[in-house]
Amino acid sequence: MQIGRYEVGGRTHYGILDGDTFRRLKGSPFESLATDGATDPRAAVRLLCPVEKPRLFGVGLNYVSHVREAKAETPKFPMLFMMPDTAACGPGDAIVYPREGKHVDFEAELAVVIGKTARRVPKEKALDVVLGYTCANDVSERTIQFAEMKTGCMLIGKSYDTFCPIGPVIATDLDPGNLDMEGFVNGKRRQSINTSDLLFDVPHLISYISQAVTLLPGDVIITGTPAGVGPILPGDVVDIAIEGIGTLSNPVVAEQ
Amino acid sequence: MQIGRYEVGGRTHYGILDGDTFRRLKGSPFESLATDGATDPRAAVRLLCPVEKPRLFGVGLNYVSHVREAKAETPKFPMLFMMPDTAACGPGDAIVYPREGKHVDFEAELAVVIGKTARRVPKEKALDVVLGYTCANDVSERTIQFAEMKTGCMLIGKSYDTFCPIGPVIATDLDPGNLDMEGFVNGKRRQSINTSDLLFDVPHLISYISQAVTLLPGDVIITGTPAGVGPILPGDVVDIAIEGIGTLSNPVVAEQ
Repeated sequence: MQIGRYEVGGRTHYGILDGDTFRRLKGSPFESLATDGATDPRAAVRLLCPVEKPRLFGVGLNYVSHVREAKAETPKFPMLFMMPDTAACGPGDAIVYPREGKHVDFEAELAVVIGKTARRVPKEKALDVVLGYTCANDVSERTIQFAEMKTGCMLIGKSYDTFCPIGPVIATDLDPGNLDMEGFVNGKRRQSINTSDLLFDVPHLISYISQAVTLLPGDVIITGTPAGVGPILPGDVVDIAIEGIGTLSNPVVAEQ
Repeated sequence: MQIGRYEVGGRTHYGILDGDTFRRLKGSPFESLATDGATDPRAAVRLLCPVEKPRLFGVGLNYVSHVREAKAETPKFPMLFMMPDTAACGPGDAIVYPREGKHVDFEAELAVVIGKTARRVPKEKALDVVLGYTCANDVSERTIQFAEMKTGCMLIGKSYDTFCPIGPVIATDLDPGNLDMEGFVNGKRRQSINTSDLLFDVPHLISYISQAVTLLPGDVIITGTPAGVGPILPGDVVDIAIEGIGTLSNPVVAEQ
């Protein structure tokens, strides 16, 4: 099943994609998947970030290939950080290249959308608290990020407004441990991986975070990027494609 | 003015403290300070975390005295991180000492409560976007935190549920650059500072964060702790007192 959040006729709805049509949900998919009978043609709606104001948990260096290209040590536990919800944006939204940007990279990532409240969930039950999966682009200003990481914590380099496009839809019933993922800049493939290469897989990440943090419906965990990250500039278009989910496409524009 | 968020008779209200009485607000102080005519005796209410589901921005090593005791380098820019809102709790709430806790420290901090939406606000206008100030206790599991910081980012060591008590009330019309702050464990004073010793002061922090992040009403910036941090254990009581605000008091209990 694919669930979208969209705007049509000035109103926002969630809907289940059925061919070329969204069947509207009564409310949010975090409450119920009941539909209200109304439908909207997919071509008539504007897709939005599939979660409103998500708590965003990020994971660093979570593919061996990216650890190698970053010339970093292999993490012994998940490298975690949070980003503010104001960094989130939706399919088609502009990634705003900030005035002080010097080296801004894109990063294709599998995003996990939590569906149930969870604390200290064991790995073997972790996928039970997932609503579904979507694509994310963990845009990063590297000069700021790397200077921050030397101090032992980071925020700004990852947290500019619009630095975390998410979408296009939430796909349920996927195996998060076996999905092909690709990242493109201006149509040229720059990243290609299967999520089986994740260092800490999705059940491990959910279990590990929930050891400390009560995870809530609507939380989003972006699970890390593989090799092939690279700089983007105003005028570029970044596409993130994941098997069973679709393609998240965002243009890059200069801050005014 | 002092603004509290509280529960009375099974309902939650905001109110302005007037002697021994709260004058109820019509809604939240982030919309309006209009009162609705009802009053509640202070003794009859249970104070809550003064902000509901805050976005929590933390600052590391922001007092010279704490930089020295941590044997760290003086930061050249604010060391920033985020914590999830599930870490927040209110006056009197228990700080839950986690099962895997080995070395849990308290940290007295001045918390800034943002009142207006702000992006790229210059230092000289930064205090205009503040609603007020309150106390915070930036509880930290050091063994986890320090292991995380070696990797360049951190989350778990600061983000356990209940690891960020906030309160008791939001005080407006204070000079955040000249407030006496003290931290006590079981009534014994362990920290004592004036906020004039902040390395990056409140206007600097607001301006710096808002360079990247649109700050929103209800955001909370906890501004860092001075020298004197130390371990706490189940059975302890931690008090954080700031001039013009009051005392935030929380017991420590073991996780069941």
